[in-house]
Amino acid sequence: MRLARLLGPDLKQVLKEDPDQVRELFDEIHPEDLADIVGELDPDEAAQLLSRLSVEYAAPIFERLEEEEQGEIAPLMPPESVAQIASEMAPDDRADFFSVLPDEVGDVILQKLERVDPEAAEEVREIEKWPETSAGHLMTTAYVHIGPDVTVRSAIDAVRVHAENHHENVYNIYAIDSNDRLIGIASLRDLLLATPLQPLREILRTNIISVRPTEDQEEVARRMAKYDLNVIPVVDDRDMILGVITVDDIIDVLTQEQTEDVQKLGAIEPLDVPYFRTSFLSFIKKRGVWLFALFFGEFFTQTALRHYDPVFEAVKGAAYYVPLLISAGGNSGSQSSTLIIRGLAVGEIKLRDWWRILIRETFMGLVLGIGLAVVGFGRVLMYPEQHTNFAFTVAFTLVGIVMTGCTVGAMMPLVLKKIGLDPATSSTPFIASLVDVLGIVIFVHIAKIIMANVIAAAGVN
Amino acid sequence: MRLARLLGPDLKQVLKEDPDQVRELFDEIHPEDLADIVGELDPDEAAQLLSRLSVEYAAPIFERLEEEEQGEIAPLMPPESVAQIASEMAPDDRADFFSVLPDEVGDVILQKLERVDPEAAEEVREIEKWPETSAGHLMTTAYVHIGPDVTVRSAIDAVRVHAENHHENVYNIYAIDSNDRLIGIASLRDLLLATPLQPLREILRTNIISVRPTEDQEEVARRMAKYDLNVIPVVDDRDMILGVITVDDIIDVLTQEQTEDVQKLGAIEPLDVPYFRTSFLSFIKKRGVWLFALFFGEFFTQTALRHYDPVFEAVKGAAYYVPLLISAGGNSGSQSSTLIIRGLAVGEIKLRDWWRILIRETFMGLVLGIGLAVVGFGRVLMYPEQHTNFAFTVAFTLVGIVMTGCTVGAMMPLVLKKIGLDPATSSTPFIASLVDVLGIVIFVHIAKIIMANVIAAAGVN
Repeated sequence: MRLARLLGPDLKQVLKEDPDQVRELFDEIHPEDLADIVGELDPDEAAQLLSRLSVEYAAPIFERLEEEEQGEIAPLMPPESVAQIASEMAPDDRADFFSVLPDEVGDVILQKLERVDPEAAEEVREIEKWPETSAGHLMTTAYVHIGPDVTVRSAIDAVRVHAENHHENVYNIYAIDSNDRLIGIASLRDLLLATPLQPLREILRTNIISVRPTEDQEEVARRMAKYDLNVIPVVDDRDMILGVITVDDIIDVLTQEQTEDVQKLGAIEPLDVPYFRTSFLSFIKKRGVWLFALFFGEFFTQTALRHYDPVFEAVKGAAYYVPLLISAGGNSGSQSSTLIIRGLAVGEIKLRDWWRILIRETFMGLVLGIGLAVVGFGRVLMYPEQHTNFAFTVAFTLVGIVMTGCTVGAMMPLVLKKIGLDPATSSTPFIASLVDVLGIVIFVHIAKIIMANVIAAAGVN
Repeated sequence: MRLARLLGPDLKQVLKEDPDQVRELFDEIHPEDLADIVGELDPDEAAQLLSRLSVEYAAPIFERLEEEEQGEIAPLMPPESVAQIASEMAPDDRADFFSVLPDEVGDVILQKLERVDPEAAEEVREIEKWPETSAGHLMTTAYVHIGPDVTVRSAIDAVRVHAENHHENVYNIYAIDSNDRLIGIASLRDLLLATPLQPLREILRTNIISVRPTEDQEEVARRMAKYDLNVIPVVDDRDMILGVITVDDIIDVLTQEQTEDVQKLGAIEPLDVPYFRTSFLSFIKKRGVWLFALFFGEFFTQTALRHYDPVFEAVKGAAYYVPLLISAGGNSGSQSSTLIIRGLAVGEIKLRDWWRILIRETFMGLVLGIGLAVVGFGRVLMYPEQHTNFAFTVAFTLVGIVMTGCTVGAMMPLVLKKIGLDPATSSTPFIASLVDVLGIVIFVHIAKIIMANVIAAAGVN
């Protein structure tokens, strides 16, 4: 990678002037790094370069470009070249590529692909029919399958033929019956350890971990991680094998899902594309929707404060403590909701644990609230003009607010999950807004109790 | 998985009463699921069960338990049994296991292991000497290595011997020279495609992607994801190969690092262990430290409000708008900081992009701020007693506060990164506190300009 960085500008020049030199570069530089460099060219330049390369060199570079780069470059190349490159790509990468192309460009290229490699075109259609984030869309249709009644030697030969056709996924072979039903799996390791004339059936593992094509990619990732799998088969409800999913795609899924979760926690609609590739308008929409929703939510703070105006009139300076007090609730609520949302996401926390969580968070809120109350009490007494009862009011309010923050923050994600919503969706800032309003109500009511005589003296009850 | 869930309680019973039946279960149920069930037993029961099983069945279950479960169960078993199980574990899992044991227990078991399997004990020491989150600590020392001047057939034989010794990592072979320096890699796929008598040297790939043992696990994960690797070699600065890291460990790293990042964003010190395994006291510490820090930070809101008391006295009701206004700044700041922190984490954003980000976020703040200002303006006018100039004050304040939120929120993570701190560490709530105080200052100064005559009439300037 460092090599590519260093050579960057020169390499660009070489590639532009004499694309055939890429052949020599291939021995020196990983195609991933070449793709980095091509990705930094203007789409026009990149399209020109890739069109001039023979497909054997262009394909490994093209398939490693970011999908958005592929989508920008491909329409600028002759459709025949693109079809030829597409026929060399892995079936899952190929399907992803077609899904980023504008429909009219994709149709033209798919027609050309139909002529170059009808099987590949068929595979694109097979994969594209599944929803974007489903197992079916992630799978590749290139894997080794064979009947169970061959010898181990024949099975190894089948792997060899598969590899000779430039396919990946050679390390597991899938035994299928005459109806294409998956009946067992053998790894190449199992095959190496068996004797050549042994029947394949004898060494098949039959406790198969698989996924359905309609399952969500997050569930696929969780299952592969749990069972430490490098490949997982996709089977339909009649156990027919449709394809396999490889671990490299799962790593991409994990990173992408995590980005979405973090963005939701930060009150942004997930972006889909990197920061600098997101258009200004799209940012305004994705941020605006939550910013406005939260703004409307906070209206209630003003309504509540105005409603309790007589109390704030009576207790001089009390209004100035409001941001301090409600932020303590918001922060403790964010902490609790973050813990629960993440726990749900990684499967450590189940809905049925709700009462254990409630008990725990209530006590946690009590202890943390008492801690802040001691500090807050001292803070109020630093002002000699403040009534001691006001210091008690602030202290009790903090206990009440932090307990409210912890319990509301912990329960809200569970409620959202229970009613079928994504608990990550903006619940942290939403909880903060809710706790802000509750905090004001708690503050006023505690003041009314502890400072009843002061408030009464000011002519309010 | 569903099978195990369904059978759960019955299986527990069977395992307790007649552990030998586990042999038959092995053909039916994935060891991962058996580990789930054993993990749900009391540590005492689990220890008793595992001690009674022959090592051949106990080891695959034990190594799939959570590390904390291993740490609880192992001290309750006879050290000899544990040593025997440990000798069957993969070197990296074995080293992880020893790192969760209390020192005195670990030492006893390591001594027993020394007798059962001296090589395994040596490997534990080799891996344990590297820092906890480094590549060295993640690696396994079980991989196939061979000189480059053998034939392809001999190389395949070496793989077979490695597999016969119950080792994983059979799909890549590492060619080393007489000084243990890594000179090339061949995959089992490459070996299958070559002819048996071809020299291994001819098919070696020499553009090797590797990591140093001291590199951080996040960097390892990033590199493996970028190059779509299932295994990556760990080499020292003289190119000597020390071990290899497999992709299943990387998936765990990604999930763990992500959990830490999310917790930091929620203002919690990372927990290290799942929610229900974290002790109450540990929660109080990990949450308290940030809750107190943010509470002290918010003191400044009260100080600022008190300082500007004459302005709030003059503009009736203005104080009640403070939570609404400053929360708009906090929310827009959280959005920006979330975007930048995540962009930095996945490598989409570099420090050198700071000025592009600043320009973008300033404009974004302007547009979003104007949007909120229109709504806020209307909101104030809903109260007939409010001065129109106050509505303008609120509107201009919103523009100023949202712009401040966006720019401070975006720049702060970059500054933290620049000075070598982790940008995720609590910067979102910290930014919210900072923007709260700035928001009050902006509000008051805009009020002083727009409502100068009202404030003057109340006897303040």
